[in-house]
This record gives sequence, C-alpha cells and structure tokens, in this order.
Amino acid sequence: MLLDITARLDYTLNAPSDILLQLEAAPLPDQRLIDPQIWTSPLDHFRRIPAEENIGDRVWVRGEGRFTCDYKSRVEVTREALDLAKLEQNPVHELPGDTIKYLMPSRFCPSDEFQSFVAAEFGTVSGGKRIVAIRDWIAEHFSYVPGSSNAQTSASDSFIQRQGICRDYAHVMITLARAGAIPARFASVYAPDVDPPDFHAVAEIYLGGAWHLVDATLMAKADEMAMIGVGRDAADVAFMTTFGMANFQDQSVEVRRVDDA
Amino acid sequence: MLLDITARLDYTLNAPSDILLQLEAAPLPDQRLIDPQIWTSPLDHFRRIPAEENIGDRVWVRGEGRFTCDYKSRVEVTREALDLAKLEQNPVHELPGDTIKYLMPSRFCPSDEFQSFVAAEFGTVSGGKRIVAIRDWIAEHFSYVPGSSNAQTSASDSFIQRQGICRDYAHVMITLARAGAIPARFASVYAPDVDPPDFHAVAEIYLGGAWHLVDATLMAKADEMAMIGVGRDAADVAFMTTFGMANFQDQSVEVRRVDDA
Amino acid sequence: MLLDITARLDYTLNAPSDILLQLEAAPLPDQRLIDPQIWTSPLDHFRRIPAEENIGDRVWVRGEGRFTCDYKSRVEVTREALDLAKLEQNPVHELPGDTIKYLMPSRFCPSDEFQSFVAAEFGTVSGGKRIVAIRDWIAEHFSYVPGSSNAQTSASDSFIQRQGICRDYAHVMITLARAGAIPARFASVYAPDVDPPDFHAVAEIYLGGAWHLVDATLMAKADEMAMIGVGRDAADVAFMTTFGMANFQDQSVEVRRVDDA
Amino acid sequence: MLLDITARLDYTLNAPSDILLQLEAAPLPDQRLIDPQIWTSPLDHFRRIPAEENIGDRVWVRGEGRFTCDYKSRVEVTREALDLAKLEQNPVHELPGDTIKYLMPSRFCPSDEFQSFVAAEFGTVSGGKRIVAIRDWIAEHFSYVPGSSNAQTSASDSFIQRQGICRDYAHVMITLARAGAIPARFASVYAPDVDPPDFHAVAEIYLGGAWHLVDATLMAKADEMAMIGVGRDAADVAFMTTFGMANFQDQSVEVRRVDDA
Repeated sequence: MLLDITARLDYTLNAPSDILLQLEAAPLPDQRLIDPQIWTSPLDHFRRIPAEENIGDRVWVRGEGRFTCDYKSRVEVTREALDLAKLEQNPVHELPGDTIKYLMPSRFCPSDEFQSFVAAEFGTVSGGKRIVAIRDWIAEHFSYVPGSSNAQTSASDSFIQRQGICRDYAHVMITLARAGAIPARFASVYAPDVDPPDFHAVAEIYLGGAWHLVDATLMAKADEMAMIGVGRDAADVAFMTTFGMANFQDQSVEVRRVDDA
Repeated sequence: MLLDITARLDYTLNAPSDILLQLEAAPLPDQRLIDPQIWTSPLDHFRRIPAEENIGDRVWVRGEGRFTCDYKSRVEVTREALDLAKLEQNPVHELPGDTIKYLMPSRFCPSDEFQSFVAAEFGTVSGGKRIVAIRDWIAEHFSYVPGSSNAQTSASDSFIQRQGICRDYAHVMITLARAGAIPARFASVYAPDVDPPDFHAVAEIYLGGAWHLVDATLMAKADEMAMIGVGRDAADVAFMTTFGMANFQDQSVEVRRVDDA
Repeated sequence: MLLDITARLDYTLNAPSDILLQLEAAPLPDQRLIDPQIWTSPLDHFRRIPAEENIGDRVWVRGEGRFTCDYKSRVEVTREALDLAKLEQNPVHELPGDTIKYLMPSRFCPSDEFQSFVAAEFGTVSGGKRIVAIRDWIAEHFSYVPGSSNAQTSASDSFIQRQGICRDYAHVMITLARAGAIPARFASVYAPDVDPPDFHAVAEIYLGGAWHLVDATLMAKADEMAMIGVGRDAADVAFMTTFGMANFQDQSVEVRRVDDA
Repeated sequence: MLLDITARLDYTLNAPSDILLQLEAAPLPDQRLIDPQIWTSPLDHFRRIPAEENIGDRVWVRGEGRFTCDYKSRVEVTREALDLAKLEQNPVHELPGDTIKYLMPSRFCPSDEFQSFVAAEFGTVSGGKRIVAIRDWIAEHFSYVPGSSNAQTSASDSFIQRQGICRDYAHVMITLARAGAIPARFASVYAPDVDPPDFHAVAEIYLGGAWHLVDATLMAKADEMAMIGVGRDAADVAFMTTFGMANFQDQSVEVRRVDDA
C-alpha cells in the first residue's frame, strides 16, 4: 500500500514563539518513507528530538510573524491488518514494563472512572474480542460531529455527549481498554478516506505481545495508515503545540492511495 | 544522611487479584541502598519490572486471601540540597527529548488550563526563582488537611479548594510548573518528619539541565528524601495498584534519621 | 397507608454555628401529619421558614457544643400510585411557568450535556413511557453501593461510574428527564424498605399536568413515601446544611408501616 | 436615566422547534418601560409566562424556517447606585425564606467548592465590604476575553483560567458570594458601554434586606442597567433556549443613553 501525503500549516505569530511540531510520518519496520520533505518559512531555530517511544521525531521551531510549514512524503505501508478478535489478552502480571504506563489514566483518558462500566458492559469477553466489542460499541453509539468538541474535551465528556471527532473516539477507545486492563495509547496518523480530510487519530492497543492500531470511527484500516507518533493521549502528540500565541490562517491535509492517483 | 525505612501493607483479597507494587527506594547515583529487604505473604506470582524512566522497580504480585508486604531498607542519601533560586530555566527549544512529556498535562495535572494564571501570578520571574515563587505560593495558600481529598482529586480541584495532602500539593506544584513551560514530574519518596507518617510525594522539576526535588508542603528537604519512583502524576507511582478488590486492613510507614535512633 | 417515622441527628459544634434543617415530613393534600414532634438540645435560635415551592419548612437553628435533633411523626399517605406509562408528556410550550426552572440544568444535574444520549437511547418514546424507560434503564445499569459517592458527586460522575446511592440515582433520573424536555426535581422523602435505613431521595417528574414521585432504585413506591421537601437537586434539600463545622456523632432513621408494627 | 434599547435575533430552524425567549426588560418599581415592542416572524405559537421570581416574562414560541425577533423599548431607570461597602450582611439565620435557594450551589456556580478560598481571602471583612472586595479581586485578576469561554464553562473553569466574558465574571462573583454565606443570583440586563455591545450579565447580591446589582467587569453601573430577569445562574435566564436546532444568522444589541442621542 502506497500513500501520498501532503500537509500544510499556515499561522501568524504575534511575538517570538516556540512551537513543537509533530507531523511527519515516522520511519518504522512496517512503514517506509519515500522522499520525505519538510520546509518552513524562515525560522530562528529548528531542532529535531526523538518523540515518545522513539517513534518519529518532534521538531522545535522558533520564529515570529508568518509561519508556514509544508510536509510531503510517499509512505509504503507493509503493516498487515490482523483479525483483532483472534488476539489473546496478556495477563497483566506478564505485561512488559514499558507497557504499564499505558494502563494508567491520563489527561483526556480518566480510565480509573470507568471500571464498573467496562466490567458490566464488556466483562464477558477478553482480549481481541473485548477490543472489537468496545470499538463496535463506540461506533454504534457515537456520532462523528466536527465542531462538537474542543482541545479540552476528555473521554468523560465524550462518553456523556456521545459525539466528537477522531480524537474523541480514540480517547474513549483508549479509556475503556485501560479500564479493562488492556494497555492502550494514542496514535496520530495519516489515513485516506478521512472525511473531512485532516490529521487523523486512532487508538493503539497492546494484545498478543504487540501493538495494534484500532480506529473506532471505522474510517481507517490498520494497513492503510501512516503513523506519525504515539503518546498517552492527544496531549502528547498534537501536530502543533505553541508556547505563545499562534493565529490560525490556513491548514490542509491530503492523503491519497497512489493507486487512486 | 542515613535513613532507616520500614513499610508494611496488610490487605485482604476476596478473589485472585493482580497487584502492582512500587514501594522500594530506588538505587540511584545519589542514594545508596543498604541491606534492602522485601517479603510478602505466600503468592502465586512475584515479578519485577523496571519502573518509569528506569528509576526503581515495579513488582507484579498475584494472590488471594490475606496479603501482607513488609519492606525495610537503610538508605544513604548523598543528594545535595541546592539553592533552587539560582537555577536557570532551560529554553523550551533546548530541552532534551525525554523531558518533553513532562511539559504535557496529565490525569491529575491539567496544566493546559493554568497558563493565564501562571503568566499573571509568576510571569515576572523565571527558572528557579519561578519555582520557588510557586512553591511558596502553594505553601502559603493551602492547608494540609488529611481526609480532604481522595484518589480522584485533581490539581484543579485542589487549586479551588485550597487544601489537600502531599499528593495534592505535588500535583498543584507540577501543574503550575508545566503551565510555565518548566518540565515537572511526580516523585514518590520516603522522608522523615512527614506528619502523620506515611508515603510521601513531592514534585521533581527540570532546571539547569537536571531534575530537582521540590516539596510544596515544606515538610521534606531534597537531601533527606529517599526516592521510590517517578511518573507524570500519582496515577503512575501509586505504592499499590490493585486489579481486583483489596480490602484495607492496616498500613504503616516509618522513616527515621539514623542519627536520631 | 400509615407510616411511623423517627429520625435522630447527633453532632458536635466546635463553635457557634448556624444550621439549616429540613427533615420533617411536609403537610400536603396527599399526606396528613399525625402528632408530629421535633425537639432539640438547647439552642440560641430556632426559626421556621417555608421551603422550596412552599412544600414543608426549613428550620434555622443556631447553637454550640453538643447538638441533637429528634423528630417523630405518624404520616397518613393517601397518594395513589399511578401507572406512569399512561401519562402524557406536556408539550414544552404549554408547560406552566413554575415548572420551567425544572427543565434547566442544576449543580448536580447537568442535563445540558445529555441531550444526544437521551435522544438516541429514549427518543422513540415520550411522556410516561419515556420516564419508565429511563427509570428501568438506570435500575438495570447501576449498582447501589453505599460509600461509592460523596457530597460532590454529580449525575455525570454517577453516569460514568454506574454506581451510587439514592441521591445519585435521583440525580441521574432527573438529569435524563430534563435532557428529554420533561421537568424533573429532587424530592427528599421517608420510605420503608430503604436498606440500609436512611433519609431517602427520589425524582419528581412533571407529566400530565402534575408532579409524580419516581424512584429509580425501585426501593420505594409513590404511595408509600412521606415527602419532606423538593428542590432542583440535593443541594436544595439536604436534611442538614451547616454554616461552620459540625462533627458527626450519630444519626438514625426509622420508617415503619403501621400495619407491620 | 433613560435608556433606548433595541435587540434583534435572526436564526434558521431546520424543523419545527420550541424556543424559550427572555429578552424584554422587566417592569419593576425601579425601572419603567416606555413603549416596549416585540415582533417576530410568523409563528405557530406565542405564549407569555412569568419568569423566575415573577421578574419579567419568558415567551414560548414555536416555528420553523427563518425565525426573527425584534425588540425595542425605552426604559426609565430610577434605581439608585448605593455605596455597597456600607451595606450590612444579614445573619444567615435571619434571611427570608425566598433567598435561601440563592445560597445553594447551581449548575455554573459550585459554591460548595470555594468555602476555604473565600474564608482565607475575604474572611476578615463581611457584608458590603466583602462584596466589594470580591468584585475588585475579580476585576483585578481576570481578563475579559470574548471567545475564551462557552455555554458549558462554569465558575470553576473561569476561576482557574482567569478569563471569560460577562457571564463568567457574574458566575465567579455569585459563587464566591454564596461560599461566603451571602445570597447571590444571576441577572440578565441591558447596559450601555458594554463592549462589544451584547446582552449583559451581572450578579445580584442580597445585602441589608434587599437585592443589589453588582458588575465584576466594572462595565455597568446599577443605576444604568435595565434588568431582563434573574435566576440561579445563566442556565435560568438565557435570552434564547432552543428545543431543537437553531442556526445562527445574525444578532445585534444596542443600548444608548437617551441624553447621548
């Protein structure tokens, strides 16, 4: 599977500001970058640092006035789409040390509040079957409504309001998985078919000894996503975090299957 | 500085349960363990895994019925108590990659909500002076009231209620530091003079290229604490996380300066 | 239906404190008080004022040191238990002015957040059928767990945690009714069969031109409750609100059907 | 003081919808309406009902498609601007029954959380001096930032974020007054000098046996406001509450001192 990705950010910075960017597809065993390019308006500072779990990079930039960032890459995705329902749940006491943090509640995923709900609603199945049940429950009970949430919206808010965007679906998926003792993290990705086109976000779930991408919006498939980065939740992998004040001018994302072109 | 530490947990498990323990002082360059011992009631399973940032261990145990855990160690602390006010703030764009996550909001530390407050209240000072100002502001405005908070209490709740215990003081300290673009994490520690005696918690702040322990309750000093572990907030470094139902029977913590004995 | 009610409060006040009491059954067309009595430890002040909607009284008392209050009454309840499912929903634009406030969100009943959920889950039925569906949904999905909630717990918290006590069941019931455009308020009551025995709380719902008591815990029936008072939620009809610091010593409530005696 | 008020709402209703309007200045002893007029696009239903505390009216309308409402009135305000600082606090146990509800927390004013803060920050003054201290503290510590809050923002959110619009200033003012045992409610008003021009909101505080308008934004004076209505908080006195889906087209408010004309 080949994807052609382009993204553009266009902002105005009223004062010299630091910005943390994370919008490049990560080089990974199951996704290969072909001719990746990133270029920006003139900046005072541009520095790469490894992102969470050494998946991809964050980039610190510093500038003032008009700030634009253009990114393009072709990505060859060789990840296979597994049958989630067949994956076994790892007993918690056998989980690797570096997955434990993804059992814990985070800013937008207060999984500690949801244990009774998960036990009652999904307690009869485990492992991949539980994850499929949670994913399908969300897909059935939630409405995808652009504009219905904001940067402060938590999985608790979304669970009550029964609506949101990809970020909110991912937060609820992660929260319910953790409340069911399955490690889960947030993955920022590019995917075709996202409507309206934008950066996309999904859950990544630890089952059968490996991490698996799961999209509760059902818009994207694991073998058609290019991963940007991971973290506990959206707080960790925003495509742009500003230390200062950035005024939005324009933004666009395009992801095409090369076959489609 | 030599500390003698003993801790005891005593719980009843109604059904076979997994428990994640993190209560042993960590071996670190600035704290040396002397004859550490941990023993438990008979268990089905006991496995060590490295804890967050490879500071100390977590222990998975699995058992049923009466569960007791006894821990004792002497710890030689060689950490120096620095003058925080002299430490420089690292420009965010020069921060190491592995400190970035500690700029981000977490379950109990929603720092994204506090940027205006921090800018208004502490905006005229930076670096160590800002941290001292935040610490002293908390110490002045909060009351230490055992029983006034619970396991769900966030730094937002505490900031409004102006009371809490060590965990809540640490959460507010961390939240305000992050909102001021200074990396901050939660440290679980043993310290003498904690009243009533218990596991203690403080903030750890990244300044001048290193991490520094800061206690907004003013009960403990950096050169008299034995660190157990670190994490984003209390969710990461509970001394005991139960997957199942544990009924409290008894618990005790004692920390003595050896000179005092 | 005759009920014999006794209640006793026993507290210690460290300093002169004002207390607002509301624990007497209200005289109402469908409940008649027989020999009601209330007596307290010596007080500086005792004043009755009408409670919300002129249903029952609040009593201001002021005192210091040991504070006890004993209440007893026989109450003849002549309220009929209607078949809720047959009641019609009043179109909102025909609702009387004094019911409008009970469509609005309140401290513990943030009904503004639940409109999508109610439309999706209960949108196909209206009026009494909707209320029965909501009541039965709560009864099915929630667990009655004394100690699982506290005085700050909102219907949002309970909706997520799926557990609580009578107060929490009533808050969720009220919240979902309001989100479905049916006026709903909180009623503090005495009822037999409450287990453990205590002050009880239920929802009161406006349907077919009148208010109807509905208990989502299913422990109490409308024709076996003695109403104390009503309000927007528990904030309005606490049996005791202290302006100062009251230390709990003891408290008891007993409600018996006279036929049982 | 003569004010000339005009307001216009312009919305589109996709389906037959019920709307609750409350945007007319109320006839009151200290404000006299001169030639009030309200007219709307063609409607299926138009019904007046008394609003909270019988101050002004709510209007139920029902329609579909384009919905416009125009309101104009001259209002003669004879209210005097008192020196708040001279007003005495009523002891809670002498408060009239119909003010008690305004001591209680409400949807956007969770005053139960703020008792420690108010005792610590404003505990040395009482009555009007306390209200002036709270008002000035808010005015000093908050920034008026249109767009920084939304319809779900509570006084807790605003207290943390230190910014908001008139509604948020009023909510914080009310919350802190109630936490200090002074009855406080929300008043929707028209006032000149509001910038940008819009419906305005202030607190109304019960002191010295009467209600007094207090604007923590300092934009409006009690003797220059035309009151629309009152309630526990913004939930009770929205100028427009829609049962259904209304799409905003346009809205304008103009308030002029007649002397200025």
